[in-house]
Amino acid sequence: MTEILAASRADEWRRLDPSRTVLMDLDRGQVVLELAPTFAPELLRNLRTLVRGGWFDGLSINRVQDNFVTQWGDAEGDRPLGAAAVRVTPEFERDWSAELRFTPLPDGDVFAPQVGFVDGFPVAGDRAAGRIWMAHCYGAVGVGRDSPADSGNGSELYVVIGHAPRQLDRNITVVGRVVMGTDLLAALPRGTQALGFYATAAERVPIRRVRFADDLPPDERPELEALRTDSASFSALVEARRNRRDDWYKRPAGRIDLCSVPLPVRKVPAAR
Amino acid sequence: MTEILAASRADEWRRLDPSRTVLMDLDRGQVVLELAPTFAPELLRNLRTLVRGGWFDGLSINRVQDNFVTQWGDAEGDRPLGAAAVRVTPEFERDWSAELRFTPLPDGDVFAPQVGFVDGFPVAGDRAAGRIWMAHCYGAVGVGRDSPADSGNGSELYVVIGHAPRQLDRNITVVGRVVMGTDLLAALPRGTQALGFYATAAERVPIRRVRFADDLPPDERPELEALRTDSASFSALVEARRNRRDDWYKRPAGRIDLCSVPLPVRKVPAAR
Repeated sequence: MTEILAASRADEWRRLDPSRTVLMDLDRGQVVLELAPTFAPELLRNLRTLVRGGWFDGLSINRVQDNFVTQWGDAEGDRPLGAAAVRVTPEFERDWSAELRFTPLPDGDVFAPQVGFVDGFPVAGDRAAGRIWMAHCYGAVGVGRDSPADSGNGSELYVVIGHAPRQLDRNITVVGRVVMGTDLLAALPRGTQALGFYATAAERVPIRRVRFADDLPPDERPELEALRTDSASFSALVEARRNRRDDWYKRPAGRIDLCSVPLPVRKVPAAR
Repeated sequence: MTEILAASRADEWRRLDPSRTVLMDLDRGQVVLELAPTFAPELLRNLRTLVRGGWFDGLSINRVQDNFVTQWGDAEGDRPLGAAAVRVTPEFERDWSAELRFTPLPDGDVFAPQVGFVDGFPVAGDRAAGRIWMAHCYGAVGVGRDSPADSGNGSELYVVIGHAPRQLDRNITVVGRVVMGTDLLAALPRGTQALGFYATAAERVPIRRVRFADDLPPDERPELEALRTDSASFSALVEARRNRRDDWYKRPAGRIDLCSVPLPVRKVPAAR
């Protein structure tokens, strides 16, 4: 992997778009999320309204369920949503339209007829039915909701910190993924209440501030770039992981599953 | 799940066998491992020799790599193995012999022609080739090794703490799985060195003591039982997870993957 990335061309990388990059500051460091307007435009709009209103500032991570999710939002349930909508049209899946740039992963999948990548996100789809959706891989960021399908508005978010819970696909809006700092969310103590909620307010992990990158001065934005999932170097990376050739591996798997494909993100090299 | 377990019969559960149950005591609590002599008899023997010689006592967890593994052993590399073997015949896979009680999971798999359960462990296999192996699901315990296939002797163990790294299947001996306390291994700070090793000795997590349960007085053994993977209640549980029927789920997945199947373990009810 190191060799392939070192040999990649500059134009195989894309800078993260500040208008869909969200920074969450915790006491221990910064978590960077990349959002997916191709799949969740309504949700993204509502999340921006929430974030501009300072919704998450001073709230906390309230739930850490082992091998499942870390979730943050308003534990006390008494902060007003401000200008944001309470109900948002579900964006669990979308039309598989012709303009989507889908890079297939031909290795197969237990849950869906097709899997691959769109705009750098792991996705699953049913081409015959004309439907496609974001897949719940490690690091996927979803929109917590109650039983009504439209009750997820972005005020509660979660990130996958265990084996891919693909049963959530098409049941909840996936709004993006963590591109840096997943470990800050995955290494937290697990909650002891039902569903991994923390038993006491003292256990909650404070959120200092959440901002969209383009609402910050340029020098406060992280300079990050992601390997394009439609690039030759990405294809080479997938193949190198599918069939490992180093001394250690005695029997290459010959296959790779969607959620095991690495999606490299790095600081923009200083030379550029 | 709660309802199915509540309705299960006593004889659908099996007590953990103390001769293949290992207890690892950390400052924060106890981790319980169940070992798989059906798949790794040689390794299990060597591990017992190591454990009886006090190998792990006072050693530490030295590596925590996000979305991959937590690993423990001798960070300094200077503790003698005592009566244990340095090299052990690899047990990466075994013959699919007739006496194995294999419960198939018919939902498919990206990596192997067959998947299912043997003796409570998730396994993958190739029936046509007559081979079967333990699968690297969340909580799987493997035997760290260097490049030579026989260099894994049990003195370094790891547990999977992320999305199932199935590319490791058939490349390393899986000796069992964590049945209680996985969170104690998964919620640790990630190491900042290459492969997630801790940068300093101070970061290492001390191991107080490791023992086989049958080497302890009965009152120090945990009284645990596991739902038999060849029981009717287990089948019902798999189906309930495959097709969720509660209000929250709008579209049941219709499928389940091997590493998403819950493997319930509980304290033996007081009434028995």
